[in-house]
Amino acid sequence: MAKEKNIGITVKKSEDISEWYTQLIQKADLADYSSVSGCMVFKPYSYAIWEKIQSEVDSRLKKMGIKNAYFPLFIPEKLLQKEATHVEGFAPEVAWVTEAGNSKLDERLAIRPTSETIMYESYSKWIRSWRDLPLRLNQWNNVVRWEFKHPVAFMRTREFLWNEGHTAFATQEEAEKECTDIVEMYGKFLKDYMALPTLLGKKSEKEKFAGAEYTLSLEMFLPSGKAIQGPDAHHDGQNFAKAFDITFLDKDEKKQYVYQNTWAITTRMIGIMLMMHGDNKGAVMPPNIAPTQIVIVPILFGDSKDKVLKVTKDIASKLKKYRLEVDERDEYSAGWKFNQWEMKGVPIRIELGPKDLEKKQVVIVRRDTGEKEFVPIKDIETKVKETLEKVHNYLYDQAKELLKQSIVEVDDLKELVKVIEAKKMAFAPFCNQPECEEIIKEKAGGAGTRNIPLNQKFEGRCVGCGKKAHVMAYFAKGY
Amino acid sequence: MAKEKNIGITVKKSEDISEWYTQLIQKADLADYSSVSGCMVFKPYSYAIWEKIQSEVDSRLKKMGIKNAYFPLFIPEKLLQKEATHVEGFAPEVAWVTEAGNSKLDERLAIRPTSETIMYESYSKWIRSWRDLPLRLNQWNNVVRWEFKHPVAFMRTREFLWNEGHTAFATQEEAEKECTDIVEMYGKFLKDYMALPTLLGKKSEKEKFAGAEYTLSLEMFLPSGKAIQGPDAHHDGQNFAKAFDITFLDKDEKKQYVYQNTWAITTRMIGIMLMMHGDNKGAVMPPNIAPTQIVIVPILFGDSKDKVLKVTKDIASKLKKYRLEVDERDEYSAGWKFNQWEMKGVPIRIELGPKDLEKKQVVIVRRDTGEKEFVPIKDIETKVKETLEKVHNYLYDQAKELLKQSIVEVDDLKELVKVIEAKKMAFAPFCNQPECEEIIKEKAGGAGTRNIPLNQKFEGRCVGCGKKAHVMAYFAKGY
Repeated sequence: MAKEKNIGITVKKSEDISEWYTQLIQKADLADYSSVSGCMVFKPYSYAIWEKIQSEVDSRLKKMGIKNAYFPLFIPEKLLQKEATHVEGFAPEVAWVTEAGNSKLDERLAIRPTSETIMYESYSKWIRSWRDLPLRLNQWNNVVRWEFKHPVAFMRTREFLWNEGHTAFATQEEAEKECTDIVEMYGKFLKDYMALPTLLGKKSEKEKFAGAEYTLSLEMFLPSGKAIQGPDAHHDGQNFAKAFDITFLDKDEKKQYVYQNTWAITTRMIGIMLMMHGDNKGAVMPPNIAPTQIVIVPILFGDSKDKVLKVTKDIASKLKKYRLEVDERDEYSAGWKFNQWEMKGVPIRIELGPKDLEKKQVVIVRRDTGEKEFVPIKDIETKVKETLEKVHNYLYDQAKELLKQSIVEVDDLKELVKVIEAKKMAFAPFCNQPECEEIIKEKAGGAGTRNIPLNQKFEGRCVGCGKKAHVMAYFAKGY
Repeated sequence: MAKEKNIGITVKKSEDISEWYTQLIQKADLADYSSVSGCMVFKPYSYAIWEKIQSEVDSRLKKMGIKNAYFPLFIPEKLLQKEATHVEGFAPEVAWVTEAGNSKLDERLAIRPTSETIMYESYSKWIRSWRDLPLRLNQWNNVVRWEFKHPVAFMRTREFLWNEGHTAFATQEEAEKECTDIVEMYGKFLKDYMALPTLLGKKSEKEKFAGAEYTLSLEMFLPSGKAIQGPDAHHDGQNFAKAFDITFLDKDEKKQYVYQNTWAITTRMIGIMLMMHGDNKGAVMPPNIAPTQIVIVPILFGDSKDKVLKVTKDIASKLKKYRLEVDERDEYSAGWKFNQWEMKGVPIRIELGPKDLEKKQVVIVRRDTGEKEFVPIKDIETKVKETLEKVHNYLYDQAKELLKQSIVEVDDLKELVKVIEAKKMAFAPFCNQPECEEIIKEKAGGAGTRNIPLNQKFEGRCVGCGKKAHVMAYFAKGY
């Protein structure tokens, strides 16, 4: 038997969430730091979550008519500079290749922080006529943004993985429809697979994407009392089309600029999900995204061993449509295994010992609530299906409740500041002027807008400047 | 109706294969050059081939027990230098990041040309005991090798996509078994999906991977008269384990070094496949890998249009398990469409006009041979299945025949030189000394060994130096 040191997390999530998270990442075998400052290793257990995100989102994108492609990692400096607002947004965080082999390069090459510029150079060549539209391409790749803030696994790393969709349409209407469709698709995926409730809205003028007309985002609220942005979709209007000369001849043979969108989901979602659902025992994986949905731990000793293993195999084969592990390692005790699988957040554990065998039952243990239930072996398929659904719903409802409890409606700045100090999110009338948001942010300890719900009919006075406000906006400190 | 300029390739494959290939890439909408010298854009049509390669190979790797992970793009210079032979092999082609934002970096960061060094730093931390072995990880990613030769789409680009597997075992035996299993898996995949016959063998001492004990490779022979290497697997013995201190305590608590392999398949395979099977009309896609396996072109005019479209839809729905396109564009003529789909190499075209409708038949046209067949609509499922198999077999047999015809057995250097001059591949006795290979290469106009078939029992005299030769090796000019 191996030495069984305590593998648990040594702090409580509610007391020190950042230390809790750091330990979780290591102890659940999710990621590791590397000798490249700010970059991390995705170990198989977290990469499997990313693969699931990829395959689910990818199949939805394909159904929407979007195709995958791959553009170069490098962007020549001149090209990156073509759209002024865009380069201003990204230049401080660009990693530059200046040498290759023994030669200095004539021009610095940016490692893509995002691929608008390299892709739109091609779009400008490829799009000639209305027949070439819409052009809707996506790529799954790695990007680099050389942040100087403290790195946090999944949440803030200099290299991360994402999808980036870049589309071009003949009309603004089509483009705007796609922008909404995409962000709704992301939102539904987060709900159904990652058990994450989100707030869909428009970013403020100050916070929108560098180069966009507007940005739609999905915002979440972490148990740490900070808001964090999930997937987003930018409607770029004709901004990039004009900078990159992306035009087409319409059916009347008139030259027109295209309308464009860009949108993304990143590996940050793994971190958000872990922080949202995890508890003092470790990760809690929502069943639909969990790399392992069920673990069977047979209790093995003495004469009954072979019998127990045989029934374990029967059960595993009954449940083979699930992502399932059977932990029959001899070198660890059952208790140690329970702890390990709890740390990894597997939604359901099935225990099966000699006594259970006699009673033709198993024990099903829920990871989220810890509830144990004795289940007759003949009912196992139905019970497992039900229980996985329950775990999903419980996680989603819990996160939804946290979100609901965190939102406080206010109508003046003093109240807003109080709400922020209480680590909550304020919902307040807002004029959407960048200068005003700057002032609110300063007074509210750095809390700016998160986003602005769509289709509001509202008349009031901005909490910042007191001028007319046509919308209510969410304000919170950001991760 | 759109202007229908001639979209065909203007040279014959047999007369100028490199110009033919350049035109093919553009005209079949496979790839495009970018403003980053030596880097290319994978357009959706070629990226779809890569996705198919990925998903097929990935599922085979997972069945073998290998897991995916993701390691950083960057490798600190000091780390890259840890294994002497390895760094010597890659240093001349490394792209270096030296600046980020406005800062100079303290240490240059290599863009990974391959990930041994960054991965083995982690392996050295992660592997402690026999319980941690085997460790079998793979990643699908992009790598950069700053070649200074003329770039050729898919075949030779500074950035390319691949999988890289890096595994560690307790015993040499397990490691060597995996090495063979992997290369055989790749070979079977190339045969079954890309219709490519290969020669499996060991690379010569001169040509083996920088840092390996030996390299197993799959070699192919192109219609241009040049050999080209496909996927490979390197058995590294304990070389990297010693350089990176990757050790474990065995069951007797003794410290041991691990045994390692690395293996890869790259986007170059797309280029090889195109070059092998394409003809003067364009690409010819093997059915199992083809992004589109079947295109239905309804012949639409006058009153019959709706009827023809209706039956087209019925047929499409009968064939929905295939990757299928229906080309009902109004703005192009049927003839222009035929040319376009032939250029793209879709294995089967189904034509359906008003006259066919009367006879309750369709026309099935094979892309490989051009054969046309009238097929009763009721038989279409059986016929399509048969025809796709026939196309696959025809492409494979043709490539196999080319390979067979290209190999000439020789036993002296003069003959070998003649064979090479005739743009063929020589099979000759060889001593496997790097110095001797150098001399043969010089005399044979640059033709070195490709690989050496396994498990030979052979006694003879080396064609180079006349010393004892225990093996026969393939010699050819390389792509």
